[in-house]
Amino acid sequence: MRDGIIQIGILGAGVVGGGLYQILQKNAEHIEQVAEVGIEVAAVCDIDWERPRDFSVPPDLRTTDAYEVINDPDIDIIVEAIGGSEAALDYVTAAIQAGKSVVTPNKEMIARHGEQILPLAGQHGVDVQFEGSVGGVIPVLRSLKESLASAQIDQIIGIVNGTTNYILTEMTEAGTRFAEVLAAAQREGYAEADPTADIEGTDAVNKLAILAALAFGARVPVEEIYREGISQITPTDIDYARQIGYVIKLLAIGTRDGDQLELRVHPALLPVQHPLAAVRGVFNAIFISGPECGEVMLYGRGAGALPTGTAVAGDVIDCARNIVHGSQGRTPCSCEGEANLRPMGEIESSAYVRMSVTDQPGVLGRIATLLGRESVSIESVIQKSSGNEVAEIVWVMHKGPERHLQAALRAIEKLDVVEQICSVIRVVDE
Amino acid sequence: MRDGIIQIGILGAGVVGGGLYQILQKNAEHIEQVAEVGIEVAAVCDIDWERPRDFSVPPDLRTTDAYEVINDPDIDIIVEAIGGSEAALDYVTAAIQAGKSVVTPNKEMIARHGEQILPLAGQHGVDVQFEGSVGGVIPVLRSLKESLASAQIDQIIGIVNGTTNYILTEMTEAGTRFAEVLAAAQREGYAEADPTADIEGTDAVNKLAILAALAFGARVPVEEIYREGISQITPTDIDYARQIGYVIKLLAIGTRDGDQLELRVHPALLPVQHPLAAVRGVFNAIFISGPECGEVMLYGRGAGALPTGTAVAGDVIDCARNIVHGSQGRTPCSCEGEANLRPMGEIESSAYVRMSVTDQPGVLGRIATLLGRESVSIESVIQKSSGNEVAEIVWVMHKGPERHLQAALRAIEKLDVVEQICSVIRVVDE
Repeated sequence: MRDGIIQIGILGAGVVGGGLYQILQKNAEHIEQVAEVGIEVAAVCDIDWERPRDFSVPPDLRTTDAYEVINDPDIDIIVEAIGGSEAALDYVTAAIQAGKSVVTPNKEMIARHGEQILPLAGQHGVDVQFEGSVGGVIPVLRSLKESLASAQIDQIIGIVNGTTNYILTEMTEAGTRFAEVLAAAQREGYAEADPTADIEGTDAVNKLAILAALAFGARVPVEEIYREGISQITPTDIDYARQIGYVIKLLAIGTRDGDQLELRVHPALLPVQHPLAAVRGVFNAIFISGPECGEVMLYGRGAGALPTGTAVAGDVIDCARNIVHGSQGRTPCSCEGEANLRPMGEIESSAYVRMSVTDQPGVLGRIATLLGRESVSIESVIQKSSGNEVAEIVWVMHKGPERHLQAALRAIEKLDVVEQICSVIRVVDE
Repeated sequence: MRDGIIQIGILGAGVVGGGLYQILQKNAEHIEQVAEVGIEVAAVCDIDWERPRDFSVPPDLRTTDAYEVINDPDIDIIVEAIGGSEAALDYVTAAIQAGKSVVTPNKEMIARHGEQILPLAGQHGVDVQFEGSVGGVIPVLRSLKESLASAQIDQIIGIVNGTTNYILTEMTEAGTRFAEVLAAAQREGYAEADPTADIEGTDAVNKLAILAALAFGARVPVEEIYREGISQITPTDIDYARQIGYVIKLLAIGTRDGDQLELRVHPALLPVQHPLAAVRGVFNAIFISGPECGEVMLYGRGAGALPTGTAVAGDVIDCARNIVHGSQGRTPCSCEGEANLRPMGEIESSAYVRMSVTDQPGVLGRIATLLGRESVSIESVIQKSSGNEVAEIVWVMHKGPERHLQAALRAIEKLDVVEQICSVIRVVDE
């Protein structure tokens, strides 16, 4: 503190650090009124002050030395906005050890190292807040920790990656192929130059690990979460899905069943009536359900300087209130231990399967027989001749164990009349 | 406290009090873990213990004397769940004066007497929390006070009354008339025996006053909020709206424009693509927008024992954390003063107008001339002959001052060729 004003040090003058800086400047008076204490940026650290930015930091606040900020005795709260998990972890650890509260939107670091950072914060009597790490502006983590804290959560389904939701929305609404939409998204800045973490689901996996820890009170090793990206999704599948009343979304799904958790990130067919089906473009949403709370959905921008900056500023205000009231550690980590994860093969799921086959009598029957042999039950089937003696068959299977379907598909693939199993996409129906 | 366990007194063993009681029993272990303190019900007060209930309270916890609960020195938190604004206000005032934190889902009391209760809580160093008063389980108030606390909010649009949303959804999906759906809703328990407060918008007005106070930091006298109910809405209007891409919803709208606020509850045409348009049945949702947060929507069950009980239990946990950490008053009332309300006539709005006219040439032109004379600009018009020399004309007007439209309609009503102005429903288009 300096003159009764809370002092903030921001590490990283990038998108989110910049968003936070602008909000703290522009809304300073409003923030002082709601927080009942002034909040001031004392220092901003970045390794490159030559880079063009759409906001400017006064030269006397700039530094390139993170430890100068972390060790400044006047600074109360460190905002880590550099991203990545290595240097960020060192800085956050040092800040906690220096007795500062920490705010970070860094999903990778929290997902991977939360189990180390959060107890350390407890030991040092400081807060670590990370609302911006999942769903940008969406107030989902604080809602799980506070408003819904009493409730048993049975399931969380999230659209938590804006890049993939933008791509799938464009593919759905314009009928464009994945590669073309991705290239356009990269030109427009909706996708990174290296989009792997987004399109292959790694980003969503980190967010699901954080959501699951808060919703189910269990630590989840990110490597153990099942993951499938969207690069194999085609306009053909999107169109078939539409015909049978579904949209295709990349979902992060966490389900509690007894003492086991099912955690998975994959594309899925979602009924058009589902509240998540209407989440378009770069928007994110998290759907939460349980026996007491019923169905709750929280929706908003999952990225961007000001939306994520708003989430980070909310955390800063929370930490500031705790400093003023001496109540740091008021909402600590409440994980009880490691999650007991159900293997993917044991998960019960419905599925959509598209295959191309030789267009001749008896083929559908032969395939259906193999499905039946593995106890895979068929909900609906469409067969369409696509010319050249080739037909396309689209199946929707009833809910059943994943391993039964996989066994049936291995057998079906070997049939001489089956040219290719083109797509297997799970269906989320409840 | 008793033996280090937070003691709760519940006033009112009705729907919400019962929901809370059940959650605190069933999830006691989970709640103790997340709150880091045990939470126990010490007493439940109700005037009628003979009434049949789907939960049971042990006889030694039952009382009929509210002040016995309020004045019990072991009790830390009073939950007021009796409803109404008179006795409830007395009890809450007494509880605050006795140094207890208070949790209440009572929208009427908070909307009418918040400006008296909240400062009193501040003077006595206790909390008053009321998340359950708006949107049931939806974590909207805490999100406004905490996660979105830094952001400037420009607009809040809420579907905050489940009864009317259920009725409008049924009218839309089954084409049934208002009176029939209301009667069915009363039989099924979705509408009260006296549904006036719901269908005439009074309930929504109370909730809007609370939302506006938190979003805009200004106290709002509920009597000054413009209010219109849904009893005049017909399947005919719902059907015309659908044809031009809209659904009809009862909306609670709060808009900030400079230093003025526009606050109103009325049915409105909402574009089918709007996230609120998909909110069906008894569900509620609140759509929040501003320059930093962008568009945020929070969705869930707006009523019911367990959903509202979850919100109340979240508040109880919040109060308990503050008691344990000595941080009561951490998120106090932050209203700066009375709202500066814009008169309804000055509000700019689009409108849908349906009228029946004599089916003869020149009528549409005469009406359009009168609209033009009052500077009301037409976006679209549909004219349909309905037989018997009567035609129906449906207009959608461009956005303009409310008083221009009203002046034009007064003039149009006097035309001999106009049989009736059947409906005037505002359009919410942004």
